Amino acid sequence: MGKEIPARNEDYSLWYNELVKKADLAEHSEVRGCMVIKPYGYSIWEKMQQALDKMFKDTGHSNAYFPLFVPKSLFEAEEKNAEGFAKECAIVTHYRLKTDPEHKGKLMVDPEAKLEEELVVRPTSEAIIWNTYKKWIQSYRDLPILVNQWANVVRWEMRTRLFLRTAEFLWQEGHTAHATADEAVRETVQMLDVYAEFAESFMAMPVIKGRKTDSERFPGAVDTYCIEAMMQDGKALQAGTSHFLGQNFAKAFNVKFTSKEGKLEDVWGTSWGVSTRLMGALIMAHSDDDGLVLPPKLAPIHVVIVPIFKSDEELKKITEKVDQISAALRKQGYAVKFDNRDTHKPGFKFAEWELKGVPVRLAIGPRDLENGTVEVARRDTKEKQVMKLDEVSAAVPRLLDDIQQSIYQRALGYRNEHITKVETYDELKKVLDEKGGFVSAHWDGTPETEAAIKEETKATIRCIPLDVKEEAGKCVYSGKPSNKRVLFARAY
Amino acid sequence: MGKEIPARNEDYSLWYNELVKKADLAEHSEVRGCMVIKPYGYSIWEKMQQALDKMFKDTGHSNAYFPLFVPKSLFEAEEKNAEGFAKECAIVTHYRLKTDPEHKGKLMVDPEAKLEEELVVRPTSEAIIWNTYKKWIQSYRDLPILVNQWANVVRWEMRTRLFLRTAEFLWQEGHTAHATADEAVRETVQMLDVYAEFAESFMAMPVIKGRKTDSERFPGAVDTYCIEAMMQDGKALQAGTSHFLGQNFAKAFNVKFTSKEGKLEDVWGTSWGVSTRLMGALIMAHSDDDGLVLPPKLAPIHVVIVPIFKSDEELKKITEKVDQISAALRKQGYAVKFDNRDTHKPGFKFAEWELKGVPVRLAIGPRDLENGTVEVARRDTKEKQVMKLDEVSAAVPRLLDDIQQSIYQRALGYRNEHITKVETYDELKKVLDEKGGFVSAHWDGTPETEAAIKEETKATIRCIPLDVKEEAGKCVYSGKPSNKRVLFARAY
Repeated sequence: MGKEIPARNEDYSLWYNELVKKADLAEHSEVRGCMVIKPYGYSIWEKMQQALDKMFKDTGHSNAYFPLFVPKSLFEAEEKNAEGFAKECAIVTHYRLKTDPEHKGKLMVDPEAKLEEELVVRPTSEAIIWNTYKKWIQSYRDLPILVNQWANVVRWEMRTRLFLRTAEFLWQEGHTAHATADEAVRETVQMLDVYAEFAESFMAMPVIKGRKTDSERFPGAVDTYCIEAMMQDGKALQAGTSHFLGQNFAKAFNVKFTSKEGKLEDVWGTSWGVSTRLMGALIMAHSDDDGLVLPPKLAPIHVVIVPIFKSDEELKKITEKVDQISAALRKQGYAVKFDNRDTHKPGFKFAEWELKGVPVRLAIGPRDLENGTVEVARRDTKEKQVMKLDEVSAAVPRLLDDIQQSIYQRALGYRNEHITKVETYDELKKVLDEKGGFVSAHWDGTPETEAAIKEETKATIRCIPLDVKEEAGKCVYSGKPSNKRVLFARAY
Repeated sequence: MGKEIPARNEDYSLWYNELVKKADLAEHSEVRGCMVIKPYGYSIWEKMQQALDKMFKDTGHSNAYFPLFVPKSLFEAEEKNAEGFAKECAIVTHYRLKTDPEHKGKLMVDPEAKLEEELVVRPTSEAIIWNTYKKWIQSYRDLPILVNQWANVVRWEMRTRLFLRTAEFLWQEGHTAHATADEAVRETVQMLDVYAEFAESFMAMPVIKGRKTDSERFPGAVDTYCIEAMMQDGKALQAGTSHFLGQNFAKAFNVKFTSKEGKLEDVWGTSWGVSTRLMGALIMAHSDDDGLVLPPKLAPIHVVIVPIFKSDEELKKITEKVDQISAALRKQGYAVKFDNRDTHKPGFKFAEWELKGVPVRLAIGPRDLENGTVEVARRDTKEKQVMKLDEVSAAVPRLLDDIQQSIYQRALGYRNEHITKVETYDELKKVLDEKGGFVSAHWDGTPETEAAIKEETKATIRCIPLDVKEEAGKCVYSGKPSNKRVLFARAY
């Protein structure tokens, strides 16, 4: 069939790449580091977007659109932000091509069309947006501003991987402005909660909410919150971040407001984003050696129906029944695919839809017609059952709910088994090497210790969990006193 | 109030610009030629996207995403296409900034981070997409490919206007691949019909479907179809185009397929797009000297309710009634805004929501409470009526339907009055200068005549209407024989 993918325990990395390509999710383009998101992959991203967009709007946000380009002078205004992204920016320097006089049929950059000021292709939009907010904000009455943008951004990554790390990626970036620090912090935490809720309820992927350490913080932020997920190979994946920006961008772009009391004050800000990286997380959280396993809430196709037939007449009779089932399911809001191709055998189709992660498969043959039955298979556990035809339209919704819950529980079980408490540095290294997952350990709070551990183990502090308990202990590395545990892991 | 805009007949161009800004639709950014689409403007664009996206999917298309950047060597592969866009391309030449040693706190392009091959920021995506289709297409079984992309594109325009002509704009671009010329032409015409249907049913904007002349054709296309609309100042606006690409891009990118008969053949293509330019068309088609007039099908807010009150107690009683009305309307799918601000007077609110084009306004005061009534005003005609409170939830939907029809009919009446048949060149010039609109005239079919008329009158051939009748005549310019009329107009 040419669709097989390697097993996870043979080569996890190759399994992932092949799965992404063979399930028609994405592929590399001829542009360095940029991917093509194929229709099937994009349809999953669209489902993510719809769910997130609704959650953003339900929490009072509106969408808007800001320029792709950031003039260099604006880009460099917030120094830490600029420093953080300067090394990976695509820069537009010219605005015209012309015929190359030395190579027939070729074009060249027209040296006379050099821009006075270079334009940075946005790696993130704080600079251009805060420069705009300056015009929108005069008084406390103009606050809060609760805006989100769906956009493409570019970060010139040297080592790229489909969905996980690409030079161009799609994302949403929320940018809000507030009159008080307190309100901005509440917004930051609220959006972290939205992300966690989305990850768990839609992606069926448990996450740990936490704070980043100083060295992992977003450039220009006062505080970075994150959700961290655990993949099946024991590596962590940062699935979303929400930043409390303090007054940093307001100060850099001179965004002030007159308070109720008539005082001129700097505006408080937040920003928060998730990207097509979530596609990578979704794939790695649930899928198996036969292909994708999709949570029903994000599956572009909920139910695929495969007819088993030897003649046109058989297919015709089956089709009549299938039309009834499809209509009943579609009426309930489910996406149903009837795979009636006569060019492929049922076994091929079964494998193809398993590869693509369709949660429920129905198969109907002539004997089913006689008996008034249908075979129902679920993708996640591969369990099959024979069901009465007239029960299907009521049973499938229950089954889909069960799959959504079930894959979440499985991922949660795996994740919980992969949080290991350690008391010594040797233990930490041993767990990282032999088991992977999150390692919960005391840390002395210094960037030096964090850097030394990272250097030696490739593990970073993924977060200081929000629900961490105060607990006296000693840093596993330095032996210095610590009052709480943090989570270390190797990560994507 | 600071919200007034000039009258259309004083300065149409200024009226448009001020309306776009004061109605919170969009504004200029500090990036040359790029705009910021503000939340209210973006919410109208989102409604357009939703309607179009559904129409694309109903006709079998899927969305996907292709890279923002096109390597120069791919960009130049289809010669005419490259020639057509080369003069207005933003070019990425470097991928890193570094600290400027001569200016503290400033960054500069790192000369060591020069790209081996320059990247063109896509002005349109045929090149990158056909280069991808090469990998997707081997056999007739892989066809058709029916893909659409929602994306930003960049065309370095020297003279820009909000929505109508901006360096960066948002659009959708459909790119389809077919086994036969016939099927590709049918697709081209189908998508033109989709655009016309969208323009008329959603935007309430009548359009003329036609073909472009050779000189107005999309670079790289065999045939360009378009829909042309008429604005209130007598200028035409191209609102959407659909291109039959023949085998041009297949040949340029070597995209071949094995036919059912086993022959290796070049693939046939189409592309089609509409952009945020439609926002400009929507604004200019219906709005008046008091602001926007939005068709209900694209209005982010269908009904605004303004309470007339002098005390908190009055407001409380009014709010109870308003909550009932709002609930009843929302249940029917309408977006309702209750403007209960106590910082502004009703007259201010009336003007503000008129400026923003909300189709229906309800006003309720203490006397209405006594009488069980509400004042209902429609935005398009400014007509007001007093209605029984319990009739509102049934009457408003009928009123919204009526507004949708009514503004279409008004625009259609204006458009039809602005198609003038002429027999001589003097007449053509006179109509263009004194009345504007489309001028229906015989043309000899040569690009020379077309260019001469354009040079002298600034009018272009907007299209050869699809429903044009064969009719013997003489070219108004050259006197040479012609067998059909074409439509001239000055245009945006």
